[in-house]
Amino acid sequence: LILLGSAAGGGFPQWNCACSNCCRAWAGDPKAPHRTQASLAASSGDGRWLLVNASPDLLTQIIRTPALHPIGLRASPIAAVLLTSGEIDNIAGLLSLRERQAFTLLATPRVQEILARNSVFDALDPALVRRQPLRPEETVEVAGLRVTLFPVPGKPPLYLEGAAAAGEEEDTVALELTGSDGRRACYVPGCHHVTPALRERLAGAEAIFFDGTVWTDDELQGVGVGTKTGRRMGHQPLSGPDGSLAALRGVAARRKILVHINNTNPLLIEDAPERGLAAAEGWEIGYDGMELAL
Amino acid sequence: LILLGSAAGGGFPQWNCACSNCCRAWAGDPKAPHRTQASLAASSGDGRWLLVNASPDLLTQIIRTPALHPIGLRASPIAAVLLTSGEIDNIAGLLSLRERQAFTLLATPRVQEILARNSVFDALDPALVRRQPLRPEETVEVAGLRVTLFPVPGKPPLYLEGAAAAGEEEDTVALELTGSDGRRACYVPGCHHVTPALRERLAGAEAIFFDGTVWTDDELQGVGVGTKTGRRMGHQPLSGPDGSLAALRGVAARRKILVHINNTNPLLIEDAPERGLAAAEGWEIGYDGMELAL
Repeated sequence: LILLGSAAGGGFPQWNCACSNCCRAWAGDPKAPHRTQASLAASSGDGRWLLVNASPDLLTQIIRTPALHPIGLRASPIAAVLLTSGEIDNIAGLLSLRERQAFTLLATPRVQEILARNSVFDALDPALVRRQPLRPEETVEVAGLRVTLFPVPGKPPLYLEGAAAAGEEEDTVALELTGSDGRRACYVPGCHHVTPALRERLAGAEAIFFDGTVWTDDELQGVGVGTKTGRRMGHQPLSGPDGSLAALRGVAARRKILVHINNTNPLLIEDAPERGLAAAEGWEIGYDGMELAL
Repeated sequence: LILLGSAAGGGFPQWNCACSNCCRAWAGDPKAPHRTQASLAASSGDGRWLLVNASPDLLTQIIRTPALHPIGLRASPIAAVLLTSGEIDNIAGLLSLRERQAFTLLATPRVQEILARNSVFDALDPALVRRQPLRPEETVEVAGLRVTLFPVPGKPPLYLEGAAAAGEEEDTVALELTGSDGRRACYVPGCHHVTPALRERLAGAEAIFFDGTVWTDDELQGVGVGTKTGRRMGHQPLSGPDGSLAALRGVAARRKILVHINNTNPLLIEDAPERGLAAAEGWEIGYDGMELAL
């Protein structure tokens, strides 16, 4: 597994933001390293790769990841792309996977419908890119891995909020990857609240990548860059008695890694005291290029 | 003027390509430096910037260009974005200009219609992003510059070829920028063939940025990566008696710069003999980060 990007939508620093975190990143502070938008690459080791979400930073991520460089004259090792939602930060990178390259595009029927309704995605040649609907709890084999989507509490993409009914099951899904030896990894980049079913699902995984968007619910208001709460954006805050770290306490997993970290989150700063609190709960902070061999 | 990116669609190296040029770039050969996809930033010097096209590499381009860094808590100096076509490599970067930022989005009515029909672009908050149709030969003032689009021979975006009537006037436009002192720059990233009207338009400009996509018409076939000719993709080859360099011979301009250079073009290699031929005709090879003060 290679964590291609570890930031939430907008990346870090965010193009139009001069909050205190972003200012440190713009200034090149080594304690506030730049991060691209969240995405994961997974492989069973046979040379083919599954891309989990296609972030707007995908070309940058491919260029800095030798495992994803071309393996023939016009041949990418990326065999499939799986989308966990229709949010822009998960789908925009599809527009960079042009140039007559065959791959399988996996997403729930709802997300496939979003792509079908937007003609810009026809830039992916329909003769080469196979769009395969994948319902929650269906399992397919991709790049030597068993892939299962499962619903988590979330919300529809902002740009479709007017059109979509709120909180339907398929809007936000998470991913379970299972190797041939039965070992599992779970990728949950967005989660509105932890449920007992989710705790059960995550328990016993080799690795959990979990929604680390905001540390506190009113964090954007606190730094003056927005009016929305974390929960309004579909993300449970990490800290506090009703935060996700508390809700996930006791869930056993070999590695527990926070991803999809918003530019306002204090965890982005390497010497922030909040890092110690996350570490005390057994959580690592994901970073661009982080590799895990399970 | 800052040339943010100098490559054609796909960039250099291209994500799935191992042609001889791309192999040198993947290997980190200093004579084959990486290039992002073509885009230009322009300003009259008042601190506001006009972005000419929003390439898929836009976030990378902003991060490496201090003039485009935020100037307030949530405030970008990018006052406007102008699109010269609806091609993916000119519009995908719009999806990265989210996060509650006001700017003006200028494009021909045809390109505005493409954006309107694709709901993903609703991610640009309509309360903040003003979409302003700009017809060829209309002039508006943006960021202290007079901006005029003018038609050039071209073709509709590939992903719309089925839907659009071929070769209509608005499909490909070029840009004329005029400062308060009357000095002009022209940006022509795509051009199917040079016409007398185009020669006349370009003559006397301080700077011309011109379509440098392919050196020879059958270049993609030559390196084995495609079947389409340059002209089929809407781009006149540079070389030869019927090439654009010959067609533009004698057009007087202080600086003449090739941009939108395809990954197959020998001009990408710094010691290629083709560079000498272009230089003999008075052309410079644009590069990422190139700055011109007119």
